[in-house]
Formats: sequence, C-alpha cells, structure tokens
Amino acid sequence: MAEQRLEINQLGEFGLIDRINSNVELSNKSSLFGIGDDAAVIDGGEESILLCTDMLTEGVHFDLSYTPLQHLGYKAVVVNISDIAAMNGRPEQIVVSLGLSNRFSVEAIDTLYEGINAACKNYNVDLVGGDITSSASGLVISIAAIGKVKKDKVVYRSGAKENDIVCVTGDLGGAYLGLQILERDKQVFLTNPDMKPQLENFEYMVGRQLKPEARTDIVYELAELGIKPTSMIDISDGLASELLHISINSGVGIKIFEDKIPIDTKVYETAAIELKIDPVTCALNGGEDYELLFTINQTDFEKIKNHQDIHFIGHVHDNAKQNLLITKQGTPIPLTAQGWNHFKKD
Amino acid sequence: MAEQRLEINQLGEFGLIDRINSNVELSNKSSLFGIGDDAAVIDGGEESILLCTDMLTEGVHFDLSYTPLQHLGYKAVVVNISDIAAMNGRPEQIVVSLGLSNRFSVEAIDTLYEGINAACKNYNVDLVGGDITSSASGLVISIAAIGKVKKDKVVYRSGAKENDIVCVTGDLGGAYLGLQILERDKQVFLTNPDMKPQLENFEYMVGRQLKPEARTDIVYELAELGIKPTSMIDISDGLASELLHISINSGVGIKIFEDKIPIDTKVYETAAIELKIDPVTCALNGGEDYELLFTINQTDFEKIKNHQDIHFIGHVHDNAKQNLLITKQGTPIPLTAQGWNHFKKD
Repeated sequence: MAEQRLEINQLGEFGLIDRINSNVELSNKSSLFGIGDDAAVIDGGEESILLCTDMLTEGVHFDLSYTPLQHLGYKAVVVNISDIAAMNGRPEQIVVSLGLSNRFSVEAIDTLYEGINAACKNYNVDLVGGDITSSASGLVISIAAIGKVKKDKVVYRSGAKENDIVCVTGDLGGAYLGLQILERDKQVFLTNPDMKPQLENFEYMVGRQLKPEARTDIVYELAELGIKPTSMIDISDGLASELLHISINSGVGIKIFEDKIPIDTKVYETAAIELKIDPVTCALNGGEDYELLFTINQTDFEKIKNHQDIHFIGHVHDNAKQNLLITKQGTPIPLTAQGWNHFKKD
Repeated sequence: MAEQRLEINQLGEFGLIDRINSNVELSNKSSLFGIGDDAAVIDGGEESILLCTDMLTEGVHFDLSYTPLQHLGYKAVVVNISDIAAMNGRPEQIVVSLGLSNRFSVEAIDTLYEGINAACKNYNVDLVGGDITSSASGLVISIAAIGKVKKDKVVYRSGAKENDIVCVTGDLGGAYLGLQILERDKQVFLTNPDMKPQLENFEYMVGRQLKPEARTDIVYELAELGIKPTSMIDISDGLASELLHISINSGVGIKIFEDKIPIDTKVYETAAIELKIDPVTCALNGGEDYELLFTINQTDFEKIKNHQDIHFIGHVHDNAKQNLLITKQGTPIPLTAQGWNHFKKD
C-alpha cells in the first residue's frame, strides 16, 4: 500500500505555519513573541525589537512581463514595512536577499535597487545588508525588516475586546483589481502583440497593485493622538482573512457592515462595470492592499471619528464563533476567509 | 548601435555588493554598521544587535538528489549562525522564508524543519517567524538571524593590525571535497543506476559539506579567555577570499604559510590520492567550511597557543598590497581569491 502523502494545499499556508509552530519552543528569554503575528517581538530593553520577513517569487507574486523592476523593489520593501507597522512599530533596517539568474543584467539590478532605495528613503529605513546569489530559475526577493516600538506599545492580533470598534485605513479591493486588469491586458497582448496596453482608466488600481504603500503614517498619527489600538494586522490577504485572524487570536467575534467597507469609486466602477465582479468581494478577499485593520477601545473613538482616512466598519462582540458581514439589506452572512492560497492546485 | 549590457559575472558577487552599497546612505542613528561585513550592527543599548541573512537556492547551493532535507534545514540555519559568530556575537533568533513548489509534501517540509529545529536547539536559537510561499520552480530557503554582542566586543573585518597573528579554527578543504565526492557519485549513478553510492571512506568530507557546524564554541571560549580578536570573518568562500577581505577592510597585508594551513589527513589523502587535486588549493579556494578566520594581538597568543582547534597560520604586516602564501619550499606566492562565483558563465 502506498504511503499517505499530505499535500501542502490540503493544509494551506496558515495550516502549515501552525504545524511548524507546534514544534517550536522559545528558549531565549529575549524572544518575547515568536510565530503567529505580523512580526516577532524581541526584548530590546525599553524598546522592543520587531523582526519580520517576506519573500516574493517570480511567477507567484509578480510577473515581470508587466511589473517594472523599480516598482517590484519598492513593493518588496513595503510589504515588510507594513508588517512592522501592523505591530505599531517604526521600521528602521532591512536586509535584502536576492536570487537572480544570468538573464538579469547589472543595469536591471540597478533598477530593482532604485526601487528598494526609494522605499527606504520614503520610510526612513536603512538597507544594512543582504545576500546576492544566483537562482536556477526565477527571480526571488526575500527581505527581513527590523523595527522598534516602546515595550508597552506593541500591538498584537490578540488584544481585541468586546465592544471595541473595528477600523480600517484607506480603501480596499484596488490592488486585486489592478492585478486583474494587468492580467487581462497581458492576455490581450499575447493574442495580439500590436495592441497597446489600455491602462489609462485604471491607473489607480494598477498603482495599488504595483506600488503599494505601508501605513506607517497612521501608526505615527495614532501615537500622537495617544491611541494604542487594542489589536492590529495589515491587510495582505484580504479583509475577511485578517478579521478572522483577529477573531481567532483575540477569542472574540467581529461584526462588520457591508456599507461601511471603504471602496474607492474607481474601484467600485471598474469591478462592477468593467470586470463584472462584486466590488465587496474584491475588498473582502482581494488582498495586497496593505492597509491597516485595527480595533480601538470606544473611549478613543472621539479622537479619530473625523479622520479622513480611517473608516469604522464594525465592532467586536464576545461570541468568538460568530464573525458576520451585515449586508446592505441587513442580512447577516458568515465571514469566511478565502485569502490567497499560493498552493492551490491548478 | 546596441546598448552596452553589463553582465553580473563581469562584476561578480562582491563587485555587485559594492555597487549596491555605493548608493546606500544610512539615515537612522541606530544603524551602526551596514553593508560590508558578516552582519549589520544595530544599536541596542549596552548590547548591539547583529542582523544577517543568507539565501540557499536549489540547483545552486544544493542538489536534492543527494542532500537530505533534514541536513539542508540544519545547514541553512548554520550558515547564518556562522555570520553572527564571525562578528563575535551570540545568535538568538531566526526567521525562515521558504519558497516551495507543489512537488513537496507536508512530510518533506516536516523533515526540513526537523533540521531547522535541530540546529536551533544545538545553538540555542529561537525560530520566531518566517514566510512560506510557493515557488514556480526550485526550493528556496532564506534565513535572517539576529544576534547580540556587548557594544565594545563587536569584531569587524577591519581591525587587523600590523604584527597580529592570523588564526584559523578547525580544518579546511573538507566541505569542498565532500561536494566533489557527492557530485562524482551522482554522475556514476546517472550512468549506472544499479551502482551503490561508495561514500564509506568519505564520510568526514561528505559530513562537512552536508552538515557543517558554526564555531560559536570558539567565540564563547575566546570571550572566557578574555580575548577579543582584532578582526574576524567566517570561511564561506575559501581561506584566500576571506584573507583578502580582512586585508582590504583593515588596510593591511597578510602573510600565511602553506605548512601551517590545517588540513585533515582524510582531506589530504582524498584530495591528493582519490581526486588528484591539490589539497592546499581545496583549503584556499574550496569554501563552505564555516570555520572562523581571525587575527589576534600578539599579547593574546600565550592564552591560546596550546588550543587544540586553533591554528596559527601567519601574521599581519603593513603592506596592504602584499598578501602572500609562503610555500613549503619558501617561495612567496601572491594570494588571489577564486572563491565561489555563482554567476560565472558555464
């Protein structure tokens, strides 16, 4: 009888992470928090040290036929900075590991680093090291980032409490739509190479996909206003997936309202009219927007209720088994995470 | 006229790193030392924080036809710990990013992590995070490590001074020979699949290649003896290459003696008799031994002169343009670094 083989896609990324984590025991007293949040937390005296890493691989996270190398470098840094921001931290250093094939010229690498350096400059982060090696196949970029945050200001996914208000920054669904537009254009081009890309009306979404920003600005603003979120996570896999992370880690339930989910008009129209897909689904499951999802105590609401870029989409309740989206018609729908599963079978 | 295209192999890895570094300006006061040593140094109060990263890619750094996944996981951790040791530091945390294809089962990943966890346990390091994603092709492992070291005990490549003694731990050339043996066996097997691997006589070298160790033991011993090396680097690219790094960074010249280079008898015999290659060349240019190369002030010599595992191979002089190997016959030969060039054209 053949031995049973468990496929990665049967577990998914999160299942795999849980499985790995179940074999890990932290033995250094400086390891304050390990696997299971946006970044690890390491004792650094008055300020804790945050450490995170993200890997982008060609053909999975990016397609070089429509991804400018400069944007790719920028985005590779931003996704890590976003993880530091999600812990309420201030990013300070990164190291960059690159796997390259011979098809890249030095000029191409220069362009990639122009993007990396631009992101470092924008977020006041220093590139302090890395590794460059060849890769037998596609381009691989792996970045690790270090951040700092006062010991008592670290925000985990696990701190949401009953009656907290659920907040989200910016707008959602754009990055996913940008990807759909770019993919559509690529297919058109492959069929008819004389066609010019028709991206004029979709600049906003394409920009959200190719050159996202991390919301460190919100982290700094909240600190100035004296607000420490009770829980926080960045939206890399989609609003629904992230809400469920907070729910599971905090042991609470979350109720959000469809009509409160921030969706830009351009995103809404492109989804509904151009691509004939549900804009709310894009926001819930699209991912890669790199906005922040966080919860605050009700007493902090007054301080940010008029903030232009923070939206209040729901609240926390005590039934951890009940995560609901209330539709515009008032119908409650259970929230399920589709997120990204890179390992799904095609 | 076609635009000039600069190929990566024209610059090499070190040339590329210099090029990248020339565009980097450190802006955070916590960034004490950036690109250009075994790890970056970040201000952490009384103890400085060390940060390094290393990426291993399938088909370049390892061949899964003869590399057990458990050993691969172990080695991926060790090469990072070795970088922390080379800064005179104590490794404490790692994050692991994996790029995987669907051909890996969950059981295979379990095996890889068994090796990662074994290395963590042996070196008292905590696995605190990571990223798991799919890769369009081969396996990619990228690890970043954090270490600590008292602020005044950080050892750079740049501190070697005239008259210092050049020291090397363990023995050299074994890892390179192990790779040659494994590659030879693979070729034999490809030609005749019924042949059984003949590795009995080569266990030592094969072990050096597949499951190297980092010399944190030496770092701790030197600290106990009150010795702070004046410069240090780990031997990943080969003795010659690392000596030249110390020479360039310290602005000094180094003279080493062929008969002092530590080469194990098994390594010597396998090289000279079995593979008909020069054992000294293996030690100088083979790489991947992960021993430590360091310099000490002469006043520290007494404390370690009888150490079984530290070898005194030469000394430092003030002519930075002259790095010499003195042969057994007394002939001086200029040291040149061949090291590894992953980007060489085949």
